[in-house]
Amino acid sequence: MTPRNFALPGVITEAIADVVGSRAVALHEPSFVGREWDYLKECLDSTFVSSVGKFVDRFEGDLAAFTGAKRVVAVVNGTAALHVALLLADVAPGDEVLVPALTFVATANAVAYCRATPHFVDSETRTLGLDALALREHLRATTEQHNGHCVNRATGRVIRAMVPMHAFGHPCDIEAVLGVASDFGIALVEDAAESLGSYVGARHTGTFGLLGVLSFNGNKTITTGGGGAILTNDEALATRAKHLTTTAKKQDRWEFFHDEVGYNYRMPNLNAALGCAQLEQLPVFLENKRRLYEAYARRFEGMVGVELVREPSGCTSNYWLQTLLLKEEQVKLRDAVLEATNDAGYMTRPAWTLMHHLPAYTECPRATLPVAESIVKRLINIPSNVLLPPSVPAP
Amino acid sequence: MTPRNFALPGVITEAIADVVGSRAVALHEPSFVGREWDYLKECLDSTFVSSVGKFVDRFEGDLAAFTGAKRVVAVVNGTAALHVALLLADVAPGDEVLVPALTFVATANAVAYCRATPHFVDSETRTLGLDALALREHLRATTEQHNGHCVNRATGRVIRAMVPMHAFGHPCDIEAVLGVASDFGIALVEDAAESLGSYVGARHTGTFGLLGVLSFNGNKTITTGGGGAILTNDEALATRAKHLTTTAKKQDRWEFFHDEVGYNYRMPNLNAALGCAQLEQLPVFLENKRRLYEAYARRFEGMVGVELVREPSGCTSNYWLQTLLLKEEQVKLRDAVLEATNDAGYMTRPAWTLMHHLPAYTECPRATLPVAESIVKRLINIPSNVLLPPSVPAP
Repeated sequence: MTPRNFALPGVITEAIADVVGSRAVALHEPSFVGREWDYLKECLDSTFVSSVGKFVDRFEGDLAAFTGAKRVVAVVNGTAALHVALLLADVAPGDEVLVPALTFVATANAVAYCRATPHFVDSETRTLGLDALALREHLRATTEQHNGHCVNRATGRVIRAMVPMHAFGHPCDIEAVLGVASDFGIALVEDAAESLGSYVGARHTGTFGLLGVLSFNGNKTITTGGGGAILTNDEALATRAKHLTTTAKKQDRWEFFHDEVGYNYRMPNLNAALGCAQLEQLPVFLENKRRLYEAYARRFEGMVGVELVREPSGCTSNYWLQTLLLKEEQVKLRDAVLEATNDAGYMTRPAWTLMHHLPAYTECPRATLPVAESIVKRLINIPSNVLLPPSVPAP
Repeated sequence: MTPRNFALPGVITEAIADVVGSRAVALHEPSFVGREWDYLKECLDSTFVSSVGKFVDRFEGDLAAFTGAKRVVAVVNGTAALHVALLLADVAPGDEVLVPALTFVATANAVAYCRATPHFVDSETRTLGLDALALREHLRATTEQHNGHCVNRATGRVIRAMVPMHAFGHPCDIEAVLGVASDFGIALVEDAAESLGSYVGARHTGTFGLLGVLSFNGNKTITTGGGGAILTNDEALATRAKHLTTTAKKQDRWEFFHDEVGYNYRMPNLNAALGCAQLEQLPVFLENKRRLYEAYARRFEGMVGVELVREPSGCTSNYWLQTLLLKEEQVKLRDAVLEATNDAGYMTRPAWTLMHHLPAYTECPRATLPVAESIVKRLINIPSNVLLPPSVPAP
């Protein structure tokens, strides 16, 4: 076993400083150097800041063009998008939904909002996302098919959907996961909240499943203040998504008639205006995030005890959050690295608490989670702003 | 019986034209003639557009100062505010919640989100809100007390909360309703979504119940694009509201630990910036809305077959939406009035479909609803913009 490198916290801090400079830096800040100002002003001048307005339609159209999804429905945030996507995947009270233990809490919460139970599965180190092989083995060993549904033998509940998630922008092995979903009769909803601008081959993440989900929270690659979107290639699902997210109100000249329990999840036009301007800059943002990755990669190359996570082969990552993984033998230094870097003004953070360690989800069914348990002890996100050097100017 | 006045549609259209002028007018448009632009620019320049930022704190503080509520928590919209307020009033799956049949669908939907059942009760013509006397009689006749809880004898379910709503800005008889709530051991959550700037005596609506709710949707007296707020005088409930609306994440230097199933309901800083500028203008908006009411009142005075709704005695209404009530004998002319006014470019609309006529809620328990049934056939909202003549200039 390699001895612990007690100098690692200082060495990592120095490497970050060499790449991003000496001033304090947040983990991820938005950049508003495009037409944000013009579009917000146009939005105010039109007085259409709220539920009706041209920027929502335009943002949806621009996102469809960028991702290749046939239809996009803009909503109030990524959590709302996940909630409605799961409802549209027919997730019903009493169902189970497969969710990586290594994810942000919204993935599991969206399942709970549907009165279904998350069922946690393991990740792989290569992608930080769902391990398709382990998932297949787990389902083979613990489920059986009833009338075309996959049933958890231990709980008797139908496993209705799975929600692979592209962690920190790195695409998971979505094609292999899709194969498992198809073989076991499980709907696939793709949590692409962190992966706008990430591709598997030439295909954008979020467009592989029945439905996909994006987020435009303030810490994401582009932001609308708060916002999210539902992607789908299914026209009927898109129409249902728009209906459910706009209080299920029927079109009528003046009557207020809502034909089911709907949600107030539409994205305000004000936020969509910001999104349109941000989306125009996305290609430059992505180029800069890749340059930042390359600068970090040069600086961390050969460093003992730690590696910088790179995009999986065959994939293009948006490099939303740059990610370090400590070697197993350095695990005990994670908090010292977090302390040294944050004390020096470089905001860094660990992975999320694994879902089955949260009080709301301790009793949920789960596979063995050795890889997620290992990753969470070793992962550290480091500063990832789009305009950190060595960046190119925005257009 | 007075004969039907077939000229009424034309007469009403002419009266509206005399007050608001000859150009086409929406039902309610926002006005951005204050510091909206400055604050949005400041927000962009700070890069804090999302979940952190000074405008959210400021908007909450400014709303507390304006309404007199001890604590205010800004959220993503009024529906989210209602949902969380009901959770904080301990509304649990299987409970019933008293809701006026005459309300916007969000009031009932928020109950459904808690997996509780709305129980519809009647309104009074004087306020367009809950009829306290009818409510007391209904509860006396159909419920019994068990261990301090009010139980619906027919369903066996606990009636946990009631949600009186101040329709179109006119305060309901909240003190009498509060008396009923107290006598029957039912929590009161006040739906003040439409009544920012409306008072009972000197006390602002939304501050009478355990919790109150505001909305800043684009059609409201002030707007944040989309937004809402929870009001309460209870510090512990306010702290819980902030926690539940921000994913229930515990404060920590870097760990992501969520101690219960929370919601992503926080208001983005971008929207709060707009709200701060709007709130500065609220006194002028209220003055203008009152002047508009007075102009309509002069014009509609003495008109046969229709009356303009005025604020209940002892109350100050924000006159959010100006409201006509046709006399009983003119009921059949409602659609003709809606057609004539809308055809002439003056946007008008009827009341909402009563909640028990919506498919999701037809099976819910309800009192007899003669007044709501009558009002809904006779009510028409007419153009109510803050800057319609005879307005004073914004500051």
